[in-house]
Amino acid sequence: MPGEFEVIGKYFSRPTPSAVLGPGDDCALLQPSPGLELAVTTDMLVAGTHFLPDTDPKNLGWKALAVNVSDLAAMGARPRWALLAGSLPEADETWIAAFAEGFFACAAAYGVDVVGGDTTRGPLNLCITALGEVAPGRALRRDGAKAGDDIWVSGRPGLAALGLAHLKGKVDLPEPWRRLCLSALEKPRPRVALGNALVGVANAAIDVSDGLLADLGHIAERSRLAAVVQLVQLPHLPKGIDRALALDCQLAGGDDYELCFTASPEQHLAIGKIAAELELPLWHIGTLRAPGAAFTLEDWNAVAGEAGSVTVYDPDGKPIDFDHRGYDHFG
Amino acid sequence: MPGEFEVIGKYFSRPTPSAVLGPGDDCALLQPSPGLELAVTTDMLVAGTHFLPDTDPKNLGWKALAVNVSDLAAMGARPRWALLAGSLPEADETWIAAFAEGFFACAAAYGVDVVGGDTTRGPLNLCITALGEVAPGRALRRDGAKAGDDIWVSGRPGLAALGLAHLKGKVDLPEPWRRLCLSALEKPRPRVALGNALVGVANAAIDVSDGLLADLGHIAERSRLAAVVQLVQLPHLPKGIDRALALDCQLAGGDDYELCFTASPEQHLAIGKIAAELELPLWHIGTLRAPGAAFTLEDWNAVAGEAGSVTVYDPDGKPIDFDHRGYDHFG
Repeated sequence: MPGEFEVIGKYFSRPTPSAVLGPGDDCALLQPSPGLELAVTTDMLVAGTHFLPDTDPKNLGWKALAVNVSDLAAMGARPRWALLAGSLPEADETWIAAFAEGFFACAAAYGVDVVGGDTTRGPLNLCITALGEVAPGRALRRDGAKAGDDIWVSGRPGLAALGLAHLKGKVDLPEPWRRLCLSALEKPRPRVALGNALVGVANAAIDVSDGLLADLGHIAERSRLAAVVQLVQLPHLPKGIDRALALDCQLAGGDDYELCFTASPEQHLAIGKIAAELELPLWHIGTLRAPGAAFTLEDWNAVAGEAGSVTVYDPDGKPIDFDHRGYDHFG
Repeated sequence: MPGEFEVIGKYFSRPTPSAVLGPGDDCALLQPSPGLELAVTTDMLVAGTHFLPDTDPKNLGWKALAVNVSDLAAMGARPRWALLAGSLPEADETWIAAFAEGFFACAAAYGVDVVGGDTTRGPLNLCITALGEVAPGRALRRDGAKAGDDIWVSGRPGLAALGLAHLKGKVDLPEPWRRLCLSALEKPRPRVALGNALVGVANAAIDVSDGLLADLGHIAERSRLAAVVQLVQLPHLPKGIDRALALDCQLAGGDDYELCFTASPEQHLAIGKIAAELELPLWHIGTLRAPGAAFTLEDWNAVAGEAGSVTVYDPDGKPIDFDHRGYDHFG
């Protein structure tokens, strides 16, 4: 069985052209780009909580980095560097090699240098820290939304959760949905190009990791506004799926890593252009209002909820009753 | 039981005056100091591997951050920011409150802003990332040692390991050693002031986390030199302790977070001044030589080992046979 330093050297020490000093010392040394702000995020993935213990290690390696790159994308930052800390029950070289393959494939796809980390023995746990750069004052924060903003979401939220339901035997997906859903679950593509394009266009953004309503709720809460979503404007999931399951996946399914963002209605055309350029569907799903404000939605008179609230209207103009707001690890 | 976001908000969201944006968004935003390099490190601490499961949570909070600050100290970097990711079996508020108290006490002691993190459910695991700053090209790297350098170590390596032996009932320590050893184990003081003072004085440095010989071995290996240590020059551990245990603690005991560094003999006076100013003993314990070089040590003729080797001489000028070189998590 290989030792700790052998494992690090063999699988996790690769060239780091964008670092002053890469793995192998007490710290990595980086030279930040003059004048830019540094965006930093850390995410911990635990076997049994965030992924099934028998998950394909190559997919897991990709995803472990991708979820962190997604946080950079949600700020509009350009990914630069990452560190990987991992606790493993044993040094299974086949597993580690496959994990490293997926991890570094994601790093290469998003221009990330893996500059350091830590390996230790224990229950399977992966903790990644990612660093990116963004022009000062231009990051897409959760607290930047304005009353009257449109709410947008990219891609097709719910695919990953539906893929998980398929793996758990709760639903039997037909092709091509099966492939789409499993790909969304196993190999999410963080929306870096979208996040970068939205700098100067969107007022606020978040990545959909805990579920659309929960994550949109974070924007509403931090911006002290009420969010209103029209169910009919959400992109469809496959027909023939149990409606309650579909709704649960769309509204509360985590793990999609699409971006939910808000922008002034004046940006409609600019956002359409971005969608066309990136060949990525962007859906206008609702609006942000001042708490308690009266407004019209299609033909109906509506009243915005309290600050931080998210209300979903069905096609008849009635708020739907939906209490599963997303994943909370201690809830 | 409190939810995830409540736990984060209540215990881990504190003012972050040195950040553009602290906890609560997809990323923290930092403004690096113009012209400085960024030093980044991540360390994962697992219950049962790195600490006893019943460790006092306040001490654990201190130590979890301290071991990362120590990595910054070993590079000569000034600590600035940290992120904390943690997996907990349950949201035990008493435990979390005590952990946070220790963690933020360490942060305050070393001028660190806790700018972000992640909490999740799972086996107890803590992963901290720390960021610091250092003047370009001035960091204390492991690969900077020169042939002829003196080898130095701060403090009294072995105390933490001896404290652990005491807790495990392998030895019954008399006072004041008991207090000293338990304090070294439970509340290590990273040598930030020393690391900063050594910039421009030392050629290489590492913190003693895995054991003195193992960590010195990393300097020797990365600098392609042979290290020679004189046992008699190591600071004493308490008398009356079993000699094998004492030797094991001094040479292979991890968790001390003292600095081991190398410097030209011309820096002897400068290092003495630093020791006096910091009121911290600094011990000249050996020398680095070109691999295979013949040299005299006290009155004896000696030959340096191969590159990366560490040889320890006893008071009679004989190399001692010692094969427990430090902690390797998969060894």
